[in-house]
Amino acid sequence: MAASAVPLSTQSAATGALDRLLSETAADMAKVNALILERADSHVEMVPELARYLIEAGGKRLRPMLTVAAAALFETPNGAQIRFAAAVEFMHNATLLHDDVVDESDMRRGRPAARVIWGNQASVLVGDFLLGQAFMMMVETGDIEALGVLAKAAAIIAEGEVFQLAKARDLSATPDDYAQVIRAKTATLFEAACEVGAMAGGADAEGREALRLYGRELGCAFQLVDDVLDYRGESGTLGKNIGDDLREGKMTLPVILALAEGNPAEREIVASALGNPETPDGVLAQVVAIFNRHGTLTRTLAQAQDHADAAKAAISGLRESEMKALLTDIADFTVARAY
Amino acid sequence: MAASAVPLSTQSAATGALDRLLSETAADMAKVNALILERADSHVEMVPELARYLIEAGGKRLRPMLTVAAAALFETPNGAQIRFAAAVEFMHNATLLHDDVVDESDMRRGRPAARVIWGNQASVLVGDFLLGQAFMMMVETGDIEALGVLAKAAAIIAEGEVFQLAKARDLSATPDDYAQVIRAKTATLFEAACEVGAMAGGADAEGREALRLYGRELGCAFQLVDDVLDYRGESGTLGKNIGDDLREGKMTLPVILALAEGNPAEREIVASALGNPETPDGVLAQVVAIFNRHGTLTRTLAQAQDHADAAKAAISGLRESEMKALLTDIADFTVARAY
Repeated sequence: MAASAVPLSTQSAATGALDRLLSETAADMAKVNALILERADSHVEMVPELARYLIEAGGKRLRPMLTVAAAALFETPNGAQIRFAAAVEFMHNATLLHDDVVDESDMRRGRPAARVIWGNQASVLVGDFLLGQAFMMMVETGDIEALGVLAKAAAIIAEGEVFQLAKARDLSATPDDYAQVIRAKTATLFEAACEVGAMAGGADAEGREALRLYGRELGCAFQLVDDVLDYRGESGTLGKNIGDDLREGKMTLPVILALAEGNPAEREIVASALGNPETPDGVLAQVVAIFNRHGTLTRTLAQAQDHADAAKAAISGLRESEMKALLTDIADFTVARAY
Repeated sequence: MAASAVPLSTQSAATGALDRLLSETAADMAKVNALILERADSHVEMVPELARYLIEAGGKRLRPMLTVAAAALFETPNGAQIRFAAAVEFMHNATLLHDDVVDESDMRRGRPAARVIWGNQASVLVGDFLLGQAFMMMVETGDIEALGVLAKAAAIIAEGEVFQLAKARDLSATPDDYAQVIRAKTATLFEAACEVGAMAGGADAEGREALRLYGRELGCAFQLVDDVLDYRGESGTLGKNIGDDLREGKMTLPVILALAEGNPAEREIVASALGNPETPDGVLAQVVAIFNRHGTLTRTLAQAQDHADAAKAAISGLRESEMKALLTDIADFTVARAY
């Protein structure tokens, strides 16, 4: 990439933000992680084997951290944020298990996907199990309104995944289609994670709405950056293979913009690579060169920064606190990890 | 089959029971069906297309009928049974969509399975959507205790399916393993359907427990009969292909008993057919002959009748009513459909 549009000072605050978030939420997250392990257990051996394989591979646990961080922003956390956070992580992991089956992915979090080891069948069913356990934990909080937020999110996420599937390899997909996909499949869970955290924290209607918006904008920024990293991350940054989205035919923004603006020869190269699992690395390099010629990765990152800015604005009216400053930096971090 | 153990008078009451249940629950089921169609809708076209294809193929809707029937047994139905019934049917349909992917089934309810038309990917995701919508409807009732019953059921069902998968083609599977599978994968939803119906009806703790037990026993009877019909139903009775369970390697009771009691040559024939998608009809016929030699289908049906009797006993203490008499007959119907 060419020089970044993000000032260096912002970048360095952003770089440390994830570590600070890890540290600030460590006490709550220890409880969340214990609950996650406990609730992934089952007398049916294959269930905890598969679930723990995925869960222990880790990932950043950004979503549940957001839930407990959102609760900490407010005066009177009631403790429900621990169960909500674990439920959010279970919903996320259920989605990953099902996504890997849908996308026929071989890698996840830098290791062979669960479906490669235990098969598609077990991945579908253990995903269902985790979803059931997620709802059990929500029920235990007794907060039916928050439960409604997460149940609605579950339906919208699935709907978004179907929409993405319907648009795969569709050369006429528009930036609006893409915005709809990422809002549903990714931003919805970030939004719900932050909103139920705020509810557990005792937020008033305004605070709850602020966190809901923050989560949504943060989730959009996060997915836009992910979709850029798919084309230029170092091996292992995402824990999956570079170019996977292209080979799966995913109509992400860099592709949509390149198809709209490329010349016929460029369009032909992109179209031929799209949705072809056999696309060689040489062609992938050509596609990335086309993206760079039209600046589609840079512009995708600029959109990500717009969403990160909107996330910061959403919580700007809340009372000042260390956690608020940290969540503001997390918004920048979401984009900075691309640089 | 040889002569049935069920007296003819019981059989004829049983035969009419489903029609009477349909008629007694018609008013409530019209509301349930309208809600089902409404909640299967989505702005993502493929969602209602696929969901309605499955839902409109019908099936008996026995589970949601049990929910509204259970509510009607008690004095003060609060209306929540309509949403619970629709949620139960959505949970059931989500399970069917995922099961067909897991089992690689080609037929469902007498038509090509949804996965044959829309693919495994869409079947997984639309199943997830239906599950999310099911929880939304439960949330709308405001009854978090009933929601807990259904959430727990969702986790147990998935766990049971994983256990069944782990036991597939396992020649050392025992009758206890089988009992555990059918209790989890089938009886749990019948149990939950009846229990939340009773809760919506205003049942006291005793009434709720009676219906829970009734549902559980009825569900076990239902699955035992299904597992017999898989080997001798008329084409189309189950809406899937005869011998599917055998070819998928499912360790159902008729198989487990035959492996335990057959001579080495018989065991060899059963074992060779089990889990082999290419098993020809001629070998299937040999397997059924082995079952008949050892009476494994007859004994499986006898167990089904025991469960049906236990279902009747579970509700025998409730105050007399037409609906109670009908649910008693439904227990016998569950077994009678095998004759």
